[in-house]
Amino acid sequence: MTDILPSILPSFVLDGWWTPSDEDGATVVRDSSTGEPVTRVSTRGLDLAAVLDHARTVGQASLGELTFHQRAVLLKQFATVLNERKEELYALSERAGATRRDSLSDVDGGIGVLFTYSSKGRRELPNARVYLDGPAEPLAKDGSFLGRHIYTRLPGVAMQINAFNFPMWGALEKFAPAFLAGVPSVVKPATPSAFVAEAWVRILVESNLLPAGSLQLISGSVPGLFDHLGLGDLVGFTGSASTAERLRAQAADGVRFTSETDSINASILGPDATVGTPEFDAYVKQLLVELTTKAGQKCTAIRRAIVPQGLTASVVDALRAKIDERVVIGDPRAEGVTMGPLVSVEQRDEVLRQVDALLGAGGELLYGSTDAPAVTRADGTVGPAPDGAFVAPLVIGFGDVDSPAVHEIEAFGPVASVLEYADAAQAAELVARGGGSLVTSVATHDAAFAATVMSGIAAFNGRVLLLDRDDARTSTGHGSPVPHLVHGGPGRAGGGEELGGIRAVLHHMQRTAVQGSPEMLTALTGVWHPGAGTRSDRHPFRKSLAELRIGDQFASGEREVTLDDIETFAAFTGDTFYAHTDEEAAAANPFFPGRVAHGYLLVSWAAGLFVDPDPGPVLANYGLENLRFITPVSPGDSIRVTLTAKQITPRETDEYGEVRWDAVILNQRDETVATYDVLTLVAKQP
Amino acid sequence: MTDILPSILPSFVLDGWWTPSDEDGATVVRDSSTGEPVTRVSTRGLDLAAVLDHARTVGQASLGELTFHQRAVLLKQFATVLNERKEELYALSERAGATRRDSLSDVDGGIGVLFTYSSKGRRELPNARVYLDGPAEPLAKDGSFLGRHIYTRLPGVAMQINAFNFPMWGALEKFAPAFLAGVPSVVKPATPSAFVAEAWVRILVESNLLPAGSLQLISGSVPGLFDHLGLGDLVGFTGSASTAERLRAQAADGVRFTSETDSINASILGPDATVGTPEFDAYVKQLLVELTTKAGQKCTAIRRAIVPQGLTASVVDALRAKIDERVVIGDPRAEGVTMGPLVSVEQRDEVLRQVDALLGAGGELLYGSTDAPAVTRADGTVGPAPDGAFVAPLVIGFGDVDSPAVHEIEAFGPVASVLEYADAAQAAELVARGGGSLVTSVATHDAAFAATVMSGIAAFNGRVLLLDRDDARTSTGHGSPVPHLVHGGPGRAGGGEELGGIRAVLHHMQRTAVQGSPEMLTALTGVWHPGAGTRSDRHPFRKSLAELRIGDQFASGEREVTLDDIETFAAFTGDTFYAHTDEEAAAANPFFPGRVAHGYLLVSWAAGLFVDPDPGPVLANYGLENLRFITPVSPGDSIRVTLTAKQITPRETDEYGEVRWDAVILNQRDETVATYDVLTLVAKQP
Repeated sequence: MTDILPSILPSFVLDGWWTPSDEDGATVVRDSSTGEPVTRVSTRGLDLAAVLDHARTVGQASLGELTFHQRAVLLKQFATVLNERKEELYALSERAGATRRDSLSDVDGGIGVLFTYSSKGRRELPNARVYLDGPAEPLAKDGSFLGRHIYTRLPGVAMQINAFNFPMWGALEKFAPAFLAGVPSVVKPATPSAFVAEAWVRILVESNLLPAGSLQLISGSVPGLFDHLGLGDLVGFTGSASTAERLRAQAADGVRFTSETDSINASILGPDATVGTPEFDAYVKQLLVELTTKAGQKCTAIRRAIVPQGLTASVVDALRAKIDERVVIGDPRAEGVTMGPLVSVEQRDEVLRQVDALLGAGGELLYGSTDAPAVTRADGTVGPAPDGAFVAPLVIGFGDVDSPAVHEIEAFGPVASVLEYADAAQAAELVARGGGSLVTSVATHDAAFAATVMSGIAAFNGRVLLLDRDDARTSTGHGSPVPHLVHGGPGRAGGGEELGGIRAVLHHMQRTAVQGSPEMLTALTGVWHPGAGTRSDRHPFRKSLAELRIGDQFASGEREVTLDDIETFAAFTGDTFYAHTDEEAAAANPFFPGRVAHGYLLVSWAAGLFVDPDPGPVLANYGLENLRFITPVSPGDSIRVTLTAKQITPRETDEYGEVRWDAVILNQRDETVATYDVLTLVAKQP
Repeated sequence: MTDILPSILPSFVLDGWWTPSDEDGATVVRDSSTGEPVTRVSTRGLDLAAVLDHARTVGQASLGELTFHQRAVLLKQFATVLNERKEELYALSERAGATRRDSLSDVDGGIGVLFTYSSKGRRELPNARVYLDGPAEPLAKDGSFLGRHIYTRLPGVAMQINAFNFPMWGALEKFAPAFLAGVPSVVKPATPSAFVAEAWVRILVESNLLPAGSLQLISGSVPGLFDHLGLGDLVGFTGSASTAERLRAQAADGVRFTSETDSINASILGPDATVGTPEFDAYVKQLLVELTTKAGQKCTAIRRAIVPQGLTASVVDALRAKIDERVVIGDPRAEGVTMGPLVSVEQRDEVLRQVDALLGAGGELLYGSTDAPAVTRADGTVGPAPDGAFVAPLVIGFGDVDSPAVHEIEAFGPVASVLEYADAAQAAELVARGGGSLVTSVATHDAAFAATVMSGIAAFNGRVLLLDRDDARTSTGHGSPVPHLVHGGPGRAGGGEELGGIRAVLHHMQRTAVQGSPEMLTALTGVWHPGAGTRSDRHPFRKSLAELRIGDQFASGEREVTLDDIETFAAFTGDTFYAHTDEEAAAANPFFPGRVAHGYLLVSWAAGLFVDPDPGPVLANYGLENLRFITPVSPGDSIRVTLTAKQITPRETDEYGEVRWDAVILNQRDETVATYDVLTLVAKQP
């Protein structure tokens, strides 16, 4: 990548770079700080249908060859190559107004999403192509008919329409779960920062790591998009609520449309968080961060600061002090600048229009000025920058907290309103007035206040952050979605969900209920179901992953449990619970016929019954799950155990993998004593 | 309930019965078999806004006082009172054309949904008001900041718009999950069978079990409904795809709209399922059931029978034999009748119009006649019934399987088409041509064929049933949704999901990510999170549920593990795995430093360390979950255990409840040796 951008930005489609031959009507993209032209974008002549078809055929085929784990390994490799070329991305991002700190959210944040999905994909998904949702549901008493929910990937294309503010994070947080699900992506960045998106796509293309058709980039507009989409396709849109509504209406029946839109997010200062408390300080600091990061151009930014009655002045004063101390507005290329411009002068003008609307609806400017600020220019001089998209932080007070404007109008820049509340119920009501938000934060150390507010606001928010002295230092922040948690919110926030770990992967898949015999469900899911066929040739502990198959079973001989055994175990372990040691007391217990064997004795003996002791492919028992004791074992009863290979998960980057065994302990009457899963690590080769 | 229905059907709103005073324009409802008037419906003068407001205020409040388990107990009581008055419901259903077997689906099926949700609610939900989704996500290295997903109920009303074919099951399958979630329902039945809905609502009202405002019934139309709905409300619609699309477009931003619409479902006969195989017989029998139950008026009915090339005649012949043997068309009140009329003559005429369209688009009538059939009348005589809505079973062949009509036109009655396929890929393609279905069944005993078809059709179906010799007898059937599994499908099937156990409850709730300190998350969720406060006064095993609080903790003393202990345990249990018995071999294992203690020794000792042995409130250890062995324990190491009350679930109908304990085994270096949850039953009172 050189510092000289092409005069027109190419698209990456059909696994090659494409540039319109006819440049008429191309849109000029300008530097946010200086207004100088950076590049242009156009899709004139692009065959959109061919792009989508390429994804649905070539992209689906190449991703379909890979398992979840193989895709996850690729995500880590993508992250690594991007990480090595971060400086180029930082430099380009400066042209779109991003300071280095802004790029920590966008560039590093985007790379972080890839790393997290790589890790979660390997830890939380099977090394397979189908994901099982929930346990098997018995539908017949004799076990011959079961139901189970499976997720399989959607057969179409994930069309990702991104906002200008996060050209890298905003794209990668959609791309990563789609890729992991096995659905090819077509990325459409917003024009003002399209050159940053082109850069990260170029780095990935140059890495030669991308499966064919798995990622395409359209630099420019996509008119008529919805004519080409249908059942099996997805649209993920980030942007304004009004555009989302317009697009949603165009989406054909069957297109899965998700939107994540700007919302009038709130941050509540608790009544306990008075001046001087750590919560007050954390609240003000967070308000500062949300006002200034990306110059307030975040769909998660705080738009409404909701504070106790009488505290407006204290909050504004404290904020003013922090701004004076820390905020230097200017060209991100200049040393010392901590807050950049908006992305474009069009955005600047739009923000100022919305500020005028807020002021016209009863708002009062408590801090800042709508005049163009003096800024630090790239060369270090300070003065006006009329062609730069600069707006200084603005705080607006609303005496009438019921004014519709403050709950509805969004100025998508460094702008927040302050509202005062009387009690927890009113604070919650004010949050709900936003009509659905991406996030609300509450600064309080009072759990009762937090609980009351939460009961009123949870259903109106996709995320709620509770800020107090215990987490202020480690909090990831009001405005920062993390890949582990869902991002999105109800109502005005778009009603969609992104991120949230594997939840976002599943949004790219279809959940289907499958009904059939244990044998058929085993064949379809790759997971052994009780009742399906088994194989008992060699002891399965003698088989490496190369040889082991689901259904491989070991059935032990019987072993009688004597009273002496129970007493020995009680003495050895110290577990002298009366059910094992006191006949009379045990018999009085509603669940036991008298003294019974310890549950831990049973599972310990079961291991003794099923283990094959010599060194071999089974390396370790690393855990146990879903243990249930069903029938008590009395002295004189005998137990035996069957162990069946249930699920096999070879690791992509190790010489071993996980094997989950179905364990059933039975007594001499063939009653089920206990059921559980034994978790082992097994070598791939003998 | 008497046999004489009111001349105009009342609505149950604002916790009282309401009848329009002005009966102008009321719609007449007629007996399906005879055309005689049964009753009329009208909502003229109904204050719809007041109905919805009542749900959002009174209904939300009364349901909000109850926990999931308390609501679940009520569902069982509802089921019980309905069960006691089934005969009345059967008799009424006959007037809407339902035979006794049809009523098994509708009446008994609806009651079954209530029983299943009652059971699942108590087994799979906490006895609380908030549901936790997935584990806590650590967001800070020091454990001071966590994230977790919670579900809280939506704050509005569930508006349930039902289809005419299942006035009881179709309503209760929406009502049960809404009620369990804590969201009040407004039920709007379809006019032709509204009197059946009125009857079950009346039985529930008479039982005095309904929480105020939790259930309202609108007998008649709801013009302008969507003007009254907003964020926090839900609409669940069952009916035609075209109506669903129209309603969806009216739903305001924030209204959660789910539809479950008729679809062109398919049933594939596998190539192995040749004449004479159990699969062939099961396939034909199922086709018969789907053609005749509810006279084919099921959104899940088989519309496309997809059979191997050359097998059409065999299938039609076998079907004909079964119809001749078993099907008696007539008034459900007549003895021996096995197939009733359609719901109304309007429906009959509509079905015949769609049959004409299919025949006009290349279809060929392979079985049956569109002439009005001779039927068994209520008095046992046989002959024409011109005012009854009778249609005889019809099978239509399509030589051109690519004809769009066969994949798009639905005749919502006893009508199916037959298509032939060449191979598994084509069979799957034909299924997908339906544009999204509620269900596809595949009759095959060949797992490879099933897997190939499944990979092509899963994403196009909400449910897939695999029928073979192993489950033919116990299968719940192609056309019968079960409450355990999701009901709904992508694309033309509406894109929604109903049922599926707790999944449907969660569709009535908002998923919100909560971030905060362990202390705050503990306070908000009612589940103890590691790092939150603990209390160590008395041993917690000495506390009944009346006294026990989450965070109550027992921290044991240390106990050293010697080589002798390991050898003793190996000898006692028989678990002589080399990692415990052979120093050299153990040291060669990648995970162990040398001989280590058995994992089962550690958890057995931990129980000995934490147990309080005397009789007391702790009744039994019924299981263990999520056990992970983290750090191996070598001879000479010491272990200790902390046990902390994590979640308390008192049972509503027993004198005890479940307590989940967080168990952590540590070594003398404070390294974590193992973590797990111990599951116990604890008495409510000392």
